[in-house]
Amino acid sequence: MPEPERKLIEHVRGLARTGQNRSVTKGIGDDTAVLRPKPRHELLVTTDLCVEGFHFRPEWHPANSVGHRCLARGLSDIAAMGGEPTACFLSLGLPEDLDQKWVTQFVKGLITLARRFGVELAGGDTSGAPAITADIVVTGQVPKGKAVLRSGAKPGDRIFVTGELGESAAILKRFFGGEKVQASKTSRHFYPEPRIAVGQWLRRRGLATAMIDLSDGLSVDLSHICDESRAGAVIHAEQVPIARLASLELALHGGEDYELLFTTKARSNVPKMIEGVRVTEVGTIHRRSDYGSQMQILGQNGALRRLKPQGWQHFSGG
Amino acid sequence: MPEPERKLIEHVRGLARTGQNRSVTKGIGDDTAVLRPKPRHELLVTTDLCVEGFHFRPEWHPANSVGHRCLARGLSDIAAMGGEPTACFLSLGLPEDLDQKWVTQFVKGLITLARRFGVELAGGDTSGAPAITADIVVTGQVPKGKAVLRSGAKPGDRIFVTGELGESAAILKRFFGGEKVQASKTSRHFYPEPRIAVGQWLRRRGLATAMIDLSDGLSVDLSHICDESRAGAVIHAEQVPIARLASLELALHGGEDYELLFTTKARSNVPKMIEGVRVTEVGTIHRRSDYGSQMQILGQNGALRRLKPQGWQHFSGG
Repeated sequence: MPEPERKLIEHVRGLARTGQNRSVTKGIGDDTAVLRPKPRHELLVTTDLCVEGFHFRPEWHPANSVGHRCLARGLSDIAAMGGEPTACFLSLGLPEDLDQKWVTQFVKGLITLARRFGVELAGGDTSGAPAITADIVVTGQVPKGKAVLRSGAKPGDRIFVTGELGESAAILKRFFGGEKVQASKTSRHFYPEPRIAVGQWLRRRGLATAMIDLSDGLSVDLSHICDESRAGAVIHAEQVPIARLASLELALHGGEDYELLFTTKARSNVPKMIEGVRVTEVGTIHRRSDYGSQMQILGQNGALRRLKPQGWQHFSGG
Repeated sequence: MPEPERKLIEHVRGLARTGQNRSVTKGIGDDTAVLRPKPRHELLVTTDLCVEGFHFRPEWHPANSVGHRCLARGLSDIAAMGGEPTACFLSLGLPEDLDQKWVTQFVKGLITLARRFGVELAGGDTSGAPAITADIVVTGQVPKGKAVLRSGAKPGDRIFVTGELGESAAILKRFFGGEKVQASKTSRHFYPEPRIAVGQWLRRRGLATAMIDLSDGLSVDLSHICDESRAGAVIHAEQVPIARLASLELALHGGEDYELLFTTKARSNVPKMIEGVRVTEVGTIHRRSDYGSQMQILGQNGALRRLKPQGWQHFSGG
């Protein structure tokens, strides 16, 4: 490999440190990583590709926030299965003229979040690239047969979401409008908090019949639940928890909030807070044939209209 | 996600088909893939980032060959651990104006190789990108504690390589010299064959004390074995199996042959062919302090000179 790559790998390896997770038998430094899942557990694997100009902009997002966001996407996928994250892998493509400080801050943002969840950076790859490119793999584990899939929702099930929705899209909208937004550590746009504890809580109690994380937006992600469960859904507009700064529109279609959407049987007892996070009922699952289209939204005026899956890109022009 | 991405995912999903590997409980279509390794096995994970202009050039490499080569890199890493590959994941960043046919041929090249090894395409991600970018994750499994690491070589061990070396670099050199080279299906540059069966054969017999795949070139990859095993090595120049078209220089420093380099105890009985692949003894492991530098090469004139780790990039200008 070229000398700059070797240096970069040594640099990342120095920041990473080993011993973060007992499931990692061998991390960085061999042909592959070696993971030893707990007995009677299955392994979860998810990959998320983040490209400069498509998923972040260096002029909007500090490097530390970009590193955090890249890893948070994968951790959020593990949360949506009710899993326990174990390791991550970072493939990093970097332009030749990129400031070394940017890379250090990026890796620190990623590693700080990884450590909080006991996740070890166990491998990866580097290359030159015309734009900053980070592909993050996150592995996790879950007791055999207990992963919460998208396909388990049944007619009559109730639909819940964690937290408030639309904040991330609201900030993106301000960026697109030309505003400069400070990267607050508590902002779900810059430093989204993966709902690992909530996902595990639901899985342990067998409470969620289906689950997904809200990465593309409620309307798109709920459509995935409906597709995989061969069901329909009605959302109650006035029950949707709208984040400060956001609107119903952004809460329905804005992505990157990384909250969880899950369904439960009609009679399940769901607390208002799970692991310190607010939980709100927003609708119900129906038979697909109950209405003309897959998803409907019940407005404040009592009228049902069609809810079309629309991701955040429909207002970002992406 | 944007509409073109959704279409691309559906397209790839259509080509992929499920049921290729019994370890994959859930492939494409949920928040994460779910893998169920065999009982008493560990999981192997490797990631390889391939970027247009850095790892391949569309004007040199047919899309089908690029897909094959991207996956072969990861399979070769699994081979070097003595592992059995189970699943792969494809993160694909594509320029907006890229011909759809290129993508189809790329995916076909990847999937054809995957099927031959019973590997399931179990997930991935897509994004726009300024250049074609493919990050490939390959997972595999190996009986607990049996992965062949880089760190097990001991002074006195013998060093072996599979196949012939330098062909891939020789073709690259011809490309850089302005020649047009046809992509032959039997060429290790365009369609490298991962040495999965050889790696497993060695692991099952407990014959290899250390192993690595030759991706960066013999001199660089042997230096990794020496580093991780805290040892030195002497290579016998006249024993190095040089590929047709190549030279000793290219065989020592040319990368991307994806052969295996392994060490065995002095008295081990190593056949001349393993699983149909030629195996050649090329040198011995020494104590690091035996010579002034870590690696030495013994020339035909009987003189020892220093062998410096130099990857293929030193003649590609990369």
